[in-house]
Amino acid sequence: MDRQPNGMITLLTDFGLSDPYVGIMKGAIKRYHPRAEIIDLCHAVPAQNVEIGAFFLASAVGQFSPGTVHLAVVDPGVGMDRRMLVIYCQDCLWVGPDNGVLEGVLPADDRPSEVRCVDIDGLGLPVPSNTFHGRDLFAPVAAMISRGQYGFRALGPRIEDPVRGRSIKELGLRVLCADGFGNLITGITAREVSELGITAIEVAGLRVPLCSAYGEVEVGTALAVLNSYGLVEIAINGGNAASSLGVSDGDLLEVVTEEES
Amino acid sequence: MDRQPNGMITLLTDFGLSDPYVGIMKGAIKRYHPRAEIIDLCHAVPAQNVEIGAFFLASAVGQFSPGTVHLAVVDPGVGMDRRMLVIYCQDCLWVGPDNGVLEGVLPADDRPSEVRCVDIDGLGLPVPSNTFHGRDLFAPVAAMISRGQYGFRALGPRIEDPVRGRSIKELGLRVLCADGFGNLITGITAREVSELGITAIEVAGLRVPLCSAYGEVEVGTALAVLNSYGLVEIAINGGNAASSLGVSDGDLLEVVTEEES
Amino acid sequence: MDRQPNGMITLLTDFGLSDPYVGIMKGAIKRYHPRAEIIDLCHAVPAQNVEIGAFFLASAVGQFSPGTVHLAVVDPGVGMDRRMLVIYCQDCLWVGPDNGVLEGVLPADDRPSEVRCVDIDGLGLPVPSNTFHGRDLFAPVAAMISRGQYGFRALGPRIEDPVRGRSIKELGLRVLCADGFGNLITGITAREVSELGITAIEVAGLRVPLCSAYGEVEVGTALAVLNSYGLVEIAINGGNAASSLGVSDGDLLEVVTEEES
Repeated sequence: MDRQPNGMITLLTDFGLSDPYVGIMKGAIKRYHPRAEIIDLCHAVPAQNVEIGAFFLASAVGQFSPGTVHLAVVDPGVGMDRRMLVIYCQDCLWVGPDNGVLEGVLPADDRPSEVRCVDIDGLGLPVPSNTFHGRDLFAPVAAMISRGQYGFRALGPRIEDPVRGRSIKELGLRVLCADGFGNLITGITAREVSELGITAIEVAGLRVPLCSAYGEVEVGTALAVLNSYGLVEIAINGGNAASSLGVSDGDLLEVVTEEES
Repeated sequence: MDRQPNGMITLLTDFGLSDPYVGIMKGAIKRYHPRAEIIDLCHAVPAQNVEIGAFFLASAVGQFSPGTVHLAVVDPGVGMDRRMLVIYCQDCLWVGPDNGVLEGVLPADDRPSEVRCVDIDGLGLPVPSNTFHGRDLFAPVAAMISRGQYGFRALGPRIEDPVRGRSIKELGLRVLCADGFGNLITGITAREVSELGITAIEVAGLRVPLCSAYGEVEVGTALAVLNSYGLVEIAINGGNAASSLGVSDGDLLEVVTEEES
Repeated sequence: MDRQPNGMITLLTDFGLSDPYVGIMKGAIKRYHPRAEIIDLCHAVPAQNVEIGAFFLASAVGQFSPGTVHLAVVDPGVGMDRRMLVIYCQDCLWVGPDNGVLEGVLPADDRPSEVRCVDIDGLGLPVPSNTFHGRDLFAPVAAMISRGQYGFRALGPRIEDPVRGRSIKELGLRVLCADGFGNLITGITAREVSELGITAIEVAGLRVPLCSAYGEVEVGTALAVLNSYGLVEIAINGGNAASSLGVSDGDLLEVVTEEES
């Protein structure tokens, strides 16, 4: 638990890029930590969608250098009394509101993790607005952590009861979301594929074979593939599965196993 | 007026992100100032919309470290003979075309500000294209300023007649714009709220109460709130006011004060 | 051919910004080259559109400092056996899949260029996923090149048969694409304008005059202009030519020359 911050801060928000909000948040980070290096993880979480936020944040696990501070601001409770959390796990520090958005980064096994509730009053920040804690609280806190101004334990008391989000396992056999290519992300993991012997997925009345790469089927043909998240996705080689199949978030799936096929 | 540039340059444009224009402009900045640190303020100003550009640029006042160079390229007059301005005020340097886009950063009170017209011919830049001064003139000038290659006074003569844009005060009781969340930004300031005793806003036939935070009303309910710009906005808790209320830029508002309510 | 990398890496992809893919790719770059400076060229190449990718990449020629590594990931063949190329030309290094996306940066004349096929097995990278070589192969390779970990010649054997894309010259008299302003980009070059004496363009039954700047015609009027790519584009001053004229990618054009007009 002595990992030092490395000066890198990633940002995940539902702010979009049509307003100056992300830019202003970066200005706040740089005021508190002028040498911080900021990387946009993504700003296209659907507005107030904590579940997709948690999924996107979890996609950063293992992808950034140890000591990176990952800040997630998907915060429908802004201005109310929800807590601000900092988690140490997966060699990184994760900062966000206590609403489940940090859910996905907690290790499922017994690897170490520690959750602390940030003692905001103790940090001496100016009085925040009631609508933009990303700028007024989260950015300064992430910056101060990344700068090493406060050690992890000095940020506030350890807690054991963070708000739990719905984990991807509880999604069941449904489409989680479509990505920008129209690929349909599911919650089916690589482990389940091998343990259950999954050979195909049924969606929208269509049975699509589990392949190793998009190019294994003809252009225009649907397939399932283990994607870079380690999850099964349904795609159309060279096409857009979401629009072509008319499938969207939450639609039901079925799995076909070796025995059945 | 001796504030040194800090090496940070923010960019505000109407270029969008669907083309390489922003990336190319950054390449130009880095050629003239290899150690510049570039932060995107926003690139989603509606095409050629100087008024929204001025509003977005003003949102950066006070949000970045002193010495930041803020470059705004919303430039419908590109290739014609409009001037290029540099303003020193609010502890920062502001660069843009002389068309009103810099309007919002000039202090309303008597805090110091100084406007200079950049003597482009004196800077020895290559002949520019007629369509992309962001790349050919603005980026190099912002880079040279940020690098300290030219002091503020050496950039060109002081002027007193910058083109004035329509200030947010002249907007009257109208919706300025909707942000990415569908929140409706108005020109009503915190000062007006307290001086007039505003307690609610009427929009689209609906009276919405002025609250302190989104979460003070039920999810799905409309409210007004002082936002992080210091302006009243109309929102729906957990929802999208612009689409739900069918309200858009320029639509009329009314204020309800303590006496009336 | 001894140009040293300068630590800057630009990214061009068709990933869009609605997912964490670009952010994750940056994490991978920083793991292999912590001091790399990453600039987004553009992430809005239409999905799997190698031709537009090649056009956008070519727009970076001459715009970045010598020694910049330009990474282009528009990769419909991901997971199959297409090669990975590195090209040295135009004072920069260009990395991408061997599918034509690097086509546009090769000099048309006899200026030096050298194409090498990256020997991926020789680099000791972990086994990649089959769906995200941007993260697993291209980002690490670009990072290692930019860091100077491998010299250009050590990356793999020289080849003479890169996959050739359709060059912009083969486009003929058609609209290449519309940019975010709705300006219609054509493949007609500055050289052709002067050699043929082009004075106007005909599109959608309309003859639009070749002007020097948008502002030379009234607001709302169509014109043609040599744009910052060095190509003729058709625009509407203060408007959106694509939507107003109802013209889109691939639509036919005609040129009007001095003799005819």
